[in-house]
Amino acid sequence: MNRKIPVVKEILGANDQVAAENRRAFEETGVLAVNLMASPGAGKTSLILATAGRLPDSIRPGVIEGDIASSIDADTIAAHGIPVVQINTGGACHLDAPMIRSALPHLDLRAIDILFIENVGNLICPADFALGSRLNVVLASVAEGHDKPYKYPGIFTVADVVLLNKADLMAVFEFDLDSFRRGVTMLRPQAPIFVLSCRSGEGVDSWVQWLIAQR
Amino acid sequence: MNRKIPVVKEILGANDQVAAENRRAFEETGVLAVNLMASPGAGKTSLILATAGRLPDSIRPGVIEGDIASSIDADTIAAHGIPVVQINTGGACHLDAPMIRSALPHLDLRAIDILFIENVGNLICPADFALGSRLNVVLASVAEGHDKPYKYPGIFTVADVVLLNKADLMAVFEFDLDSFRRGVTMLRPQAPIFVLSCRSGEGVDSWVQWLIAQR
Repeated sequence: MNRKIPVVKEILGANDQVAAENRRAFEETGVLAVNLMASPGAGKTSLILATAGRLPDSIRPGVIEGDIASSIDADTIAAHGIPVVQINTGGACHLDAPMIRSALPHLDLRAIDILFIENVGNLICPADFALGSRLNVVLASVAEGHDKPYKYPGIFTVADVVLLNKADLMAVFEFDLDSFRRGVTMLRPQAPIFVLSCRSGEGVDSWVQWLIAQR
Repeated sequence: MNRKIPVVKEILGANDQVAAENRRAFEETGVLAVNLMASPGAGKTSLILATAGRLPDSIRPGVIEGDIASSIDADTIAAHGIPVVQINTGGACHLDAPMIRSALPHLDLRAIDILFIENVGNLICPADFALGSRLNVVLASVAEGHDKPYKYPGIFTVADVVLLNKADLMAVFEFDLDSFRRGVTMLRPQAPIFVLSCRSGEGVDSWVQWLIAQR
């Protein structure tokens, strides 16, 4: 048993060490790096596009796309003229710091002010791996139901901000916003919650203003 | 490196061995065990309730609920008079065979004909862990978008049947059903696809008839 524990520690330690290097690279180049975590289909790519489209010209976005397979999202981002790198994890259920490090040489960090890192769609595993980002953003969706903070507490406990997408469908899904808010606040009292819809645009401005103020 | 590989093999081997024991327990008692896998909020519990409610009296349902935390879903199932055991994984992103084995003494398998095992909400990790079930059911939802087979191929390649829930909202989400079908069929040509809505009830009967025929 003694042999196994050091191996696990070593792996976690290595990730944290690379995450610290990434963080330094972001700080030195004035990049606000954002780790965007959500279930599959919550609207991560839509959020990035809605946010990037509302930034003033002086704040330049960049994107790292994490997916198990495909470049569907990166193609969408690139079509909007935003610098983007695709990471295919090849099966891994989350991004890690070495993956981010390997993506950085493909981005001109001095030409990016806010770097959105779209994690693999997963409400569990990404919470355990630091990437070197400064903000953890957890994006939930009305379509998933209001009980997610109670069922997947771990990821909410590491959130610096919680976004609730697809708010235009609140009535359709009989979403209990009070219950959702109570769950988030119980787990992470300091995290602001923004209710928005990337499709209708409602609520997106408030989130973007908050984000800009974090720079 | 030689030291690490055997450890990994041992862990996977142990899970498969316990899965085989579980499978034997199900076969000996005439239980059709179903491993239900989906993203968070796709409607796993709603599917179990909609399915159980359409079974003839001669086919008795039972449920094992897998969640990281809470007994929200198990409480819902129990309120419908269905035998249920809750497994809280305490952080693990999937169920495994030993967890199922530990739940079995709490269920009277001879009083159950179809056992629904609701896995942790995760479209990635559950695909890698056999539980001893006879059917792998992958439940997708219209709200997640039609690109899920392309982005999360692994779980579709182990599906015996694919269900698409929330079909009553197909127009709202501009869901491309042809693209979804092509993706699933590319990965798993032999898996039938049932399009349904647990809320409106459309399409649920066809799935239930198919499921009953698997006994």
